[in-house]
Parts: sequence; structure tokens; C-alpha cells
Amino acid sequence: MEYTKPLAKLIEYFQKLPSIGPKTAQRLALYVIKMSENEVRNFAEALIDAKTTISYCDVCFNMSSANPCEICSNPTRNKSIVCVVAETKDLMAIEKTNEYSGVYHVLQGLISPIDGIGPDDIRIKELLFRVNQNNITEVILALNPSVEGEATSLYLSKLLKPFNVKITRIAFGLPMGSELEYADEMTLAKALEGRVEL
Amino acid sequence: MEYTKPLAKLIEYFQKLPSIGPKTAQRLALYVIKMSENEVRNFAEALIDAKTTISYCDVCFNMSSANPCEICSNPTRNKSIVCVVAETKDLMAIEKTNEYSGVYHVLQGLISPIDGIGPDDIRIKELLFRVNQNNITEVILALNPSVEGEATSLYLSKLLKPFNVKITRIAFGLPMGSELEYADEMTLAKALEGRVEL
Repeated sequence: MEYTKPLAKLIEYFQKLPSIGPKTAQRLALYVIKMSENEVRNFAEALIDAKTTISYCDVCFNMSSANPCEICSNPTRNKSIVCVVAETKDLMAIEKTNEYSGVYHVLQGLISPIDGIGPDDIRIKELLFRVNQNNITEVILALNPSVEGEATSLYLSKLLKPFNVKITRIAFGLPMGSELEYADEMTLAKALEGRVEL
Repeated sequence: MEYTKPLAKLIEYFQKLPSIGPKTAQRLALYVIKMSENEVRNFAEALIDAKTTISYCDVCFNMSSANPCEICSNPTRNKSIVCVVAETKDLMAIEKTNEYSGVYHVLQGLISPIDGIGPDDIRIKELLFRVNQNNITEVILALNPSVEGEATSLYLSKLLKPFNVKITRIAFGLPMGSELEYADEMTLAKALEGRVEL
């Protein structure tokens, strides 16, 4: 089928976004055409605004339009605890729990030799610099329980050892509300391994 | 959690789109920030372009930036057969089959008394005008097999009777690749009712 040109172009742009297939792209584009012109202009402006004003925090490498970011410059945050995450989206996931009041360090990736990502390609030296310079008492490693996440955690814990800080890792185990019967072997093994005394 | 402002605004806009929940909106917004500035500007422009240049075809009420639309002005299309659909997205679905070479009439809705949509709220009189003025030999009703679609089909077939045109309706029955065993009763009843001689 032949779409009218401006529609075809818009569908193409929507399709470039992650998790948007051709059917959803068409639906979104048709929806945009039914929005008011004012709304569409605001949406377009929000896109450009987000892209042009958001950069990375010089302290923790979180995405922000402020520098240092809102979290690093928040006086109620405990600056002596640093939670290390791979990406901004992981930071967001932790923030949503409302359980953490320390600060973060976004590595902007994980060590992955297959993808050609070595320790120097992510923000490791900046983390060591922070730990060295500031009064940091605990570093929490909150990386994905994947091969890359585990490798990066191991690497970081070795590097951080000499700095006399407590190094912890988030717990891996059964997700809340799940059933033991249906847990995979790896998860169950981790849950056993990480058992805690009651 | 508190997003940095321009990001919060972009997430909010993505969330207004159909089938985009908060998690997907966050993912799309983060993706946009990692796109090149040039790409984001082009995307924003495509949004405004689609909204401002696309209107409705005066002949068939299809969405298009041209008037008459690409289909109505295509000389290879058979203008004597008109396929009546509810929305532009239905037209697109039929176009994708590559099986239809006639033209369309987009009603821009279906009769639905519950929603306060009567015959005068959709493009019915324009259809009658077309059938009356032009040499149309067949009107194909391709409306959803829903209460509203059936009611609109019935209404249209009554109105079109006097015009000496062939009135047909697309077939309802088992979808290809499905299994009889799992078909719902309504579909199976329609399939029986619509049986054809071999």
C-alpha cells in the first residue's frame, strides 16, 4: 500500500523507536494526525527540548538537564553511599522503589568483551576517583544478574578493595509473588546461595 | 522518582499516545535522548509536517496530503467500484492485501446511538451523492463485524437499494489458518450462514 508521503515519513520515524513495529507505528501516526495542531507542536518541541537540554551529570553520569544532576545536588541525599548501576534506566527503577536515599554512579554500560566493551569504555575510573576523593563508606553494586553484570561486579569489587569501603551487591533470588515451583534452576541456586539467617 | 524536567515532559507526551504505557514511554524517551540531534529534529519535523499537511480527500474522505487523494487520482484505479470503510486504518488494511483495485469511501465512523453518532454524523450523504452522480456499478461494504458495523451496513444497504447498483458485503467466517474447533459460536454461525457452493 502507498501511504501519503508525510504519513509514510512519520510512520518510518515511529518505527525507528524501540518496541514499535509497523502496525503500532501506523496507529501512532494516525493518532497524531487526529491530535490538535497545538498538541502536536508541543510534542515536537518536547522532543527537541529533551534532546538539546539533557546531558550527563559530571559527578554520577546520570542523564539530567542540570549539572550536577537533581540527585547529586539534593542536600537530603546521603553522599556517603554510592549505588553503581549500568544505565540511567536502572537508576530510575531503583528511584521508583522510594527505598534508597544515597547517590548513584551510572557506568553507562557493562564490561562485555564480545561487544568490544572493556573497563576503559565505561565510567570505572570516574568511580574510583569519586571513592578516592570523597568520604564514601559504602558502594552498592546494582548490576544485572547477567554474564556481563557479574563480570563487571567482580572486576569492580577487586578494584574497590584497597579503598577501605564496604562493598555490597543487591540480592539475587526469587522475585516477590513468584512460586518456588516455577523458578528456574539458576535463580533457585542463587536464592539458596544467598540465604540469610532469620 | 523525579525525572529531570524535559525528560518528564517528553515521557508525558509519549504516554498520551495509544498503547504506550509508563514503562514504554520512559524507554522511548530515553531512546530519543540517545538519538542524534539531527534525527530528533527530523522526527519533530515529521510530526508537524504530517499534522499540518494531511487533510481529508474531498471525494472519498481518506487522509491525504493531496486532494483528491492518491487513490482517487490514480488513473489505473477502477472508479466504478467503491469500497465503503469506517476509518482510514481499515482502508490501509485492505490496501495491504494488494487485491483491490477499486476506490474507497471512508465513512469516518459507524452509526452508534449509544455514543450519540447518528447517520448524519458520518459521511453517508456524501456516499449517496457519489453513487448518484457517478457511474458506480458496485458498492462493497467492508465494515467491522460488530453491532455498529452491522447496523451501519444494514442502513446503507437500504439507502443504496434505489440506485440500481450491486451492493455486496465482505465475507464473515473462519479466519485463514484457524481451527474450527476453537472458533467462537458467532463466527461459526456466520461461516455456516455464508457458505458458498463449490
